[in-house]
Amino acid sequence: EDVVVHKVSAADDPFGKDPERHPALIVNSAKPYNAEPPPDLLIDAGFTTPNEIHYKRNHLPVPEIDPETYRLQVEVEGKQCVRLSLEDLKMKFPHYRVAATIQCAGNRREEMMAVKPVRGLSWGLGAISTTEWTGVRLRDVLAYAGFDLNEDGPLQHVQFEGLDRDMTQAYGGSIPVHKAVDPHGDVLLAFEMNGEPLPRDHGFPVRVVVPGVVGARSVKWLGKIIASTGESQNHWQQKDYKGFSPSVDWDTVDFSTAPAIQELPVVSAICAPTAHALVSAHEDTIPVRGYAWSGGGRGIVRVDVTADGGATWHTAQLAPPEGQPLHRAWAWTLWEAEVPVPEGARGKEGAKLEIACKATDASYNTQPELAAPIWNLRGVLTNHWHRVPLVVSDEE
Amino acid sequence: EDVVVHKVSAADDPFGKDPERHPALIVNSAKPYNAEPPPDLLIDAGFTTPNEIHYKRNHLPVPEIDPETYRLQVEVEGKQCVRLSLEDLKMKFPHYRVAATIQCAGNRREEMMAVKPVRGLSWGLGAISTTEWTGVRLRDVLAYAGFDLNEDGPLQHVQFEGLDRDMTQAYGGSIPVHKAVDPHGDVLLAFEMNGEPLPRDHGFPVRVVVPGVVGARSVKWLGKIIASTGESQNHWQQKDYKGFSPSVDWDTVDFSTAPAIQELPVVSAICAPTAHALVSAHEDTIPVRGYAWSGGGRGIVRVDVTADGGATWHTAQLAPPEGQPLHRAWAWTLWEAEVPVPEGARGKEGAKLEIACKATDASYNTQPELAAPIWNLRGVLTNHWHRVPLVVSDEE
Ligand SMILES: [Mo]
Ligand SMILES: [Mo]
Repeated sequence: EDVVVHKVSAADDPFGKDPERHPALIVNSAKPYNAEPPPDLLIDAGFTTPNEIHYKRNHLPVPEIDPETYRLQVEVEGKQCVRLSLEDLKMKFPHYRVAATIQCAGNRREEMMAVKPVRGLSWGLGAISTTEWTGVRLRDVLAYAGFDLNEDGPLQHVQFEGLDRDMTQAYGGSIPVHKAVDPHGDVLLAFEMNGEPLPRDHGFPVRVVVPGVVGARSVKWLGKIIASTGESQNHWQQKDYKGFSPSVDWDTVDFSTAPAIQELPVVSAICAPTAHALVSAHEDTIPVRGYAWSGGGRGIVRVDVTADGGATWHTAQLAPPEGQPLHRAWAWTLWEAEVPVPEGARGKEGAKLEIACKATDASYNTQPELAAPIWNLRGVLTNHWHRVPLVVSDEE
Repeated sequence: EDVVVHKVSAADDPFGKDPERHPALIVNSAKPYNAEPPPDLLIDAGFTTPNEIHYKRNHLPVPEIDPETYRLQVEVEGKQCVRLSLEDLKMKFPHYRVAATIQCAGNRREEMMAVKPVRGLSWGLGAISTTEWTGVRLRDVLAYAGFDLNEDGPLQHVQFEGLDRDMTQAYGGSIPVHKAVDPHGDVLLAFEMNGEPLPRDHGFPVRVVVPGVVGARSVKWLGKIIASTGESQNHWQQKDYKGFSPSVDWDTVDFSTAPAIQELPVVSAICAPTAHALVSAHEDTIPVRGYAWSGGGRGIVRVDVTADGGATWHTAQLAPPEGQPLHRAWAWTLWEAEVPVPEGARGKEGAKLEIACKATDASYNTQPELAAPIWNLRGVLTNHWHRVPLVVSDEE
């Protein structure tokens, strides 16, 4: 479940010290705070999403961390543990800047909930955002702490522990070591977001950014790193953020049978026009804009848009991320298309139509048509074609 | 197009020296020879496919090569060219053994052709096979020829030229350099196939094996390797083996707009029972067996099977490739499931039903439902759900 309801008096409210947020965000949960930008705001912002409208996905209260006393513990199992201040991190290691899209496993969940209820926050299509992150490489920090980058040894996982916690647990997760140490994997310990210090909602003073991987592993408010023989035993690694068959329900689910989500499948969405928008009866085409992205650094090679249920497809113009080749494309591809209004609807006041999009990534993976066959009890991994209903109108 | 018809007198037949082939193979084209094993033979053979029934996909006549005089040219642009004998290859470099599945881009094309005609051979589900390959690493040979493995320089492609040719061209292709030199990429120059010297149909004496990538880049009868600034300009790299929207036809296609296929999307197929097989009216369940595989080394995490059009799904038992972790799973996952006969068909002589399967890979990519939305003029990348029609019968 996404949210544990905390019953407390106002004075003891663990969320009482959460930061202020932008009023335009759509709030899916107030405590912990989970919110997304509306689709048109997201797309109008362009390639990088301004920090204040970047989607916020908090599992627990936002911790208050003093950057002066902050220490990051780095442990390589079988070696000593090192402690690094924020200053150490910034001074001891080269800085890197990486444009990366982060997407919540639950993005577009509301479309899956329309098939059958699931447990989870009702995210629209805005639980995805793109940032220019600045930080140091995880692999450099691991090497500093004694990890042998060239050895393919028993330490197969890198665990992260957050400093966000409640009475019973902290947030945490892990990634496979091959991703952590890959010189082309671009995993950062970030301290800047679009050129500013990380906002409190995004992990101040230091967070992990794992490009190409589900947002859940980009642990915020990073307290500890452990290079380990085993995966993180954290709740959100073991008992959540996994995919199951549509026929598995909460009575039959065995979380140990599925791997923790790491790379995400290819996805796309139409951000403009928005649902139930009016199409002018005087126009022959509809300008359509949206995003497409895939996990594992797989760039987007094509986006197809249809206004007639898939009878004809229109290939969108792509704006791929600059300087990111097809095998290392961590950031989304924004796209636009001029889609002809189908003849049956053209100029007809009140006619209804539906536009839909699907993307293809560099491995030529595509999106499935429907939500039902990918439905899962936790409502993650929603990546079927995105559909937007529209109405033709005479109004100017 | 797959096949250029050669009109010649029998004596001059360029295919006259092609080797003998196994009589059980289904021949899709005799000259050049293209053939696949029937589904039940493929699955009964188990994890590794015997060489003689491995699918054969030849673009041109099979060359006759004397292993004594054979030389492999290796060129790193801007450096000298080296020439290696078969003995050199075997003696100068460490040997590696890699189990890898190779799949033709056109596998399952016949299902796409059922939607609308395409240009290409009518492959069933057997244009995929798995082998224990033995050879030396491409990266070691490139380093020997002067390629700097640590430099991320201008040589972004590794081209391969085959010794198979006709009057106008030879076969060839290229892969991105990051795959070629990745120490975990396992690209081989192979000289053994399941412990035997390469058969002539499979590239004797030396072929490339690019695990996780479309078969077309695993160039057989390897004559030349070029580390280059550019992609191969070969026909099959530039004007073939690319994916397009269903709305692109031969009048409108511009091959320069799509990237050459490298990694393939997730696929699966039911090998047993075969189409129109009889289901005993006395049985409540159907034993179903098949394969699943994905490009890029992404292992298979789940296979779902349905006998009621997707209303209920049965999770198959998987046999993942031994010793291949989820991010380096080059070989297929065989699977089996006992699927209940739907109530409406159970025990009913003559009742028709359909079983279907879909796989999910380690990036949680899944297969699309239908062929029409992924249809493309060349009939490649067919990976929608595989469906097998069955008939209930009283016969014992
Ligand atoms: Mo998430
Ligand atoms: Mo192929």
